[in-house]
Amino acid sequence: MSEFRLNRATKEWIIIATERAKRPQQFLGKSEKPKLPPFDPHCPFCPGNEKQTPSEIYALRQRNTVPDQPGWRVRVVTNKYPALEPAEKMVKITGKFFRSALGVGKHEVIIETPRHNQTFAILNLKQAEEVCLVCWKRYLFLEKDRRFKLIMIFKNHGVTAGTSLKHPHIQVIALPLIPASIRHPLEEAMSYYDDHGTCVFCDMMQEEFKAKKRIILENEKYVAFHPFASRSPFETWIVPKRHNACFGSITEGEVKSMASVLRRVLRKIHDRLGDPDYNLIIRTAPIKDTLEDYYHWYVQILPRLTTPAGFELGSGVYINTSLPEETAKFMRR
Amino acid sequence: MSEFRLNRATKEWIIIATERAKRPQQFLGKSEKPKLPPFDPHCPFCPGNEKQTPSEIYALRQRNTVPDQPGWRVRVVTNKYPALEPAEKMVKITGKFFRSALGVGKHEVIIETPRHNQTFAILNLKQAEEVCLVCWKRYLFLEKDRRFKLIMIFKNHGVTAGTSLKHPHIQVIALPLIPASIRHPLEEAMSYYDDHGTCVFCDMMQEEFKAKKRIILENEKYVAFHPFASRSPFETWIVPKRHNACFGSITEGEVKSMASVLRRVLRKIHDRLGDPDYNLIIRTAPIKDTLEDYYHWYVQILPRLTTPAGFELGSGVYINTSLPEETAKFMRR
Repeated sequence: MSEFRLNRATKEWIIIATERAKRPQQFLGKSEKPKLPPFDPHCPFCPGNEKQTPSEIYALRQRNTVPDQPGWRVRVVTNKYPALEPAEKMVKITGKFFRSALGVGKHEVIIETPRHNQTFAILNLKQAEEVCLVCWKRYLFLEKDRRFKLIMIFKNHGVTAGTSLKHPHIQVIALPLIPASIRHPLEEAMSYYDDHGTCVFCDMMQEEFKAKKRIILENEKYVAFHPFASRSPFETWIVPKRHNACFGSITEGEVKSMASVLRRVLRKIHDRLGDPDYNLIIRTAPIKDTLEDYYHWYVQILPRLTTPAGFELGSGVYINTSLPEETAKFMRR
Repeated sequence: MSEFRLNRATKEWIIIATERAKRPQQFLGKSEKPKLPPFDPHCPFCPGNEKQTPSEIYALRQRNTVPDQPGWRVRVVTNKYPALEPAEKMVKITGKFFRSALGVGKHEVIIETPRHNQTFAILNLKQAEEVCLVCWKRYLFLEKDRRFKLIMIFKNHGVTAGTSLKHPHIQVIALPLIPASIRHPLEEAMSYYDDHGTCVFCDMMQEEFKAKKRIILENEKYVAFHPFASRSPFETWIVPKRHNACFGSITEGEVKSMASVLRRVLRKIHDRLGDPDYNLIIRTAPIKDTLEDYYHWYVQILPRLTTPAGFELGSGVYINTSLPEETAKFMRR
């Protein structure tokens, strides 16, 4: 018999479809990738091709090297085809019925490594820490712009996850407005707080510790698990143990600790599932929010092992063909 | 410069990304399909293979033919791997923190034609009417079950749209609960009604008629257009001119008229874009709702010409690389 499950934090119902159920190992090798070389002369993100990107905004570099030249370890540039553009304008919504606004914002790319084929899963700890620190620093920089309301940090790994460039990179988009699908889960978290006097994410973590079944790994500061109501097979949440609504409010130590857990989780996904395509999203409260008590930032990893179809697009209810308890067990082994 | 656009009905912000903009013809031939034969001996939906599906629930058949035998024009069966199962039980939500419910519901498949390679776009008018009438009749039948709250009718055309069987078919899922992502747009429509005293969809239609730029075609009862804030290139809405919250409340004449417009729209998409993959969703109010004044049912067609990535998954804001005014013009030609 299938089962409906509610994600208490996002208020999403999902269906665990046992009639369609697959064993964890059946998801192995879902996205075969060609073996990449460590350097691709045609890749705009490879060292030596720095002139093919917009100029450098920020980088971690070797001493005595200069911007837009090789010698960097992590490099940040503006997206060459930005979704939003950094005009010196305020964002004003206009139009009577058909409302629109100038597409003002920022769209940056964090090139994680000079090596074309070195995905996050196979970075060493020092490198992973540097990448996470750069994400955090870009967040702290962008949140100072008073026009921006929300900073989205995300990663598309693989073609079915929507990436167009294979060289490992993370994207940052600063938005001047708060979209409805961000607002709704915030409201749900506030409503939970009204009812219970506690943060739904803190409660979820406690319940996951009690249940034990869906936890993958943890360290002093974070826990990684497959949510009770996972949208899709191997969906993974990395949740900070310390309550905190905003990614920008964490400490440098917490960023490094996040890097360590993230690297271990992505490595497990890489090794156990054969480097599948995935999306990674840092879920955080809007900038200067008043949601400190209610919301809780976290990292969401969504492997692209199934294709959302008309039912998912229409109802928002995802059909998950695996059991999170089983996939978590498979990952722990 | 990019542009934010708000879909007033769904309250979704989208980004028209002019830096990434593509001409309408650049989307042509995005999903190459192998040429299919009119009959596939291995297809469970082809005539003669009726025993490979669960037994027939309903069919339009030639006189003197019997269920689960050839002779049908449109055939309805239970999905062999149903997401939800029709147990004779009430749906009760249980669990203290981790809420769940039995996966009770219905999951049916409407086989649109006996011909393996005859997609909806190339049905004749009589056939298209019959398919739409069967959808409507299944809706009217399923809404009588007092446990069901929402009936989703949808179609996945092509592999990237999530279909697993190539033989043309539509799916129907009856849900015993109303998911948050259905509830939120209903609330937005109610809020619009509070503010304006009118239905947001009726207003949108009027505004589209005034603007003229995004309309593809119309008949006496329906209008098809590319919404001002289309999520993705060539997203098409078919909206009934008569205000009506629920697909189940329309007349037989309105069903036939819908078939005519739907067939013309899908034919245009098929011919102009080279038979792309798409999802089709009938958006309707929940069963026995009290939303009659606020909501307005419609058909949403989402060609799968781009891949939603981490940004879309994370923010709910879709980046559209085409201008609806341009794509609509291209379709009208």
